[in-house]
Amino acid sequence: MSVAKYRLVLLGAGQVGSHLAHRIDECPELELVQIYSRKFASVQALAETLSREPSSTDSLGEVVYDADYYVFALSDSALTTVWAQMPKTRGIWLHTAGSVPLSAMQPYHGSSGVLYPLQTFSRSRCLDWTKIPIYTEATSPELLGNVMSLASMLSPNVHHASSEERQLIHLSAVFVCNFANHLWALGEELMMQQGLDPKTLQPLIEETCAKMLAMSPREAQTGPARRGDRMTIERHLDLLREVRADLIPLYTELSDSIQRMYNI
Amino acid sequence: MSVAKYRLVLLGAGQVGSHLAHRIDECPELELVQIYSRKFASVQALAETLSREPSSTDSLGEVVYDADYYVFALSDSALTTVWAQMPKTRGIWLHTAGSVPLSAMQPYHGSSGVLYPLQTFSRSRCLDWTKIPIYTEATSPELLGNVMSLASMLSPNVHHASSEERQLIHLSAVFVCNFANHLWALGEELMMQQGLDPKTLQPLIEETCAKMLAMSPREAQTGPARRGDRMTIERHLDLLREVRADLIPLYTELSDSIQRMYNI
Repeated sequence: MSVAKYRLVLLGAGQVGSHLAHRIDECPELELVQIYSRKFASVQALAETLSREPSSTDSLGEVVYDADYYVFALSDSALTTVWAQMPKTRGIWLHTAGSVPLSAMQPYHGSSGVLYPLQTFSRSRCLDWTKIPIYTEATSPELLGNVMSLASMLSPNVHHASSEERQLIHLSAVFVCNFANHLWALGEELMMQQGLDPKTLQPLIEETCAKMLAMSPREAQTGPARRGDRMTIERHLDLLREVRADLIPLYTELSDSIQRMYNI
Repeated sequence: MSVAKYRLVLLGAGQVGSHLAHRIDECPELELVQIYSRKFASVQALAETLSREPSSTDSLGEVVYDADYYVFALSDSALTTVWAQMPKTRGIWLHTAGSVPLSAMQPYHGSSGVLYPLQTFSRSRCLDWTKIPIYTEATSPELLGNVMSLASMLSPNVHHASSEERQLIHLSAVFVCNFANHLWALGEELMMQQGLDPKTLQPLIEETCAKMLAMSPREAQTGPARRGDRMTIERHLDLLREVRADLIPLYTELSDSIQRMYNI
């Protein structure tokens, strides 16, 4: 009979929490004993989708005392509130946030650490955890060993990063994920605004992604700013003045940034 | 014996020109009779890679008189110079530029049109032309019929767009392709600047692309600006102040634009 090595409590049933719960559920060496969320309906709905159903609670007072890990997958703003209201527990407390320093958690529980999965989580997406880099940190080298051993059960791609490094990784992630996605939303919006089908941009977006993964984005850069094509840039600014003047500073900032990168 | 339906001359052996030459070479109904480029070495190198080798020239005076189509795949700034130096010819002149209006070409040759493939072209990439949307325009409805019939041999995805629409499509393409790619380059640069491996961003970029193609970018948006998470935004701005102050206006512009899109 195989026995779970670590018993976990998960706090948070949002996008990150849901994906973590499913990943933990897949690992025979891990046992998710309890999930907490302020919203009982969300936590119960999540618990029911797991093959080994944990207990559910919406009360921090009911959180079990003797798990090995307490994983806080909550919004940055909820973290300190929840930590302040947590009962005393054994085990290691971990948060999953890119930009929250470990020092913000330590006053609430000495044995604490970070398990930051570098990925964009949406409930409707199926993710391959073997490809997700996990950045870990802990209050002592011994604890770090424990946290890295837990992380390696979730993904083979485990690293250590200081709070400063993790924040920089999170900032980079905002550029490559959130901001890139926003440019796609803006491109589609521009098309729709003029009655054009935004779906026709998709082959271009697909090739943009495929190319950059094959070549590196620095080499893959094309377009008027990269070519130093002032005439086209001016034409685009004239057009934006007519259709979306609010986007002029963004267009200019991005074109200037490209020209600075390539000394054009 | 199958006979080519249309005889083409291609002017330009750059990224777009090379991809077009290979696509034309694949179509039994098309015959590429000649390629012109200012640089003889480039045009000859390209011609040699084609299965039906066309003649090569670096002299506009040698351009043949009696082709059906003359396709100008040149940089926007070279177009008017080359048009002004072209000998009189029969056939239809076409340019492939997103932001050059048809009216800029018409004074040089009455029967003219546009064949704009909406894609990012790099010499080293293999492209699937069946997925590339082509936007066409011409100086008369009859000519437009001819241009669309030519375009349909290159791709099943052929549309008509006025010069104004095409410019808007090109502008949208700059946002979704060139600008998105630049954000990836910046993200990687931020990582490298701090001695972190930029390759660890790749699974995130892959999922960002896959998610947006499955969900639409508007729905797929995540991140601090989307959540209205001022604390994280402030932390990122503090960090940028230390490591890359030049990126603060860009970070701010993008975050504000996200918040405007979702009324946050």
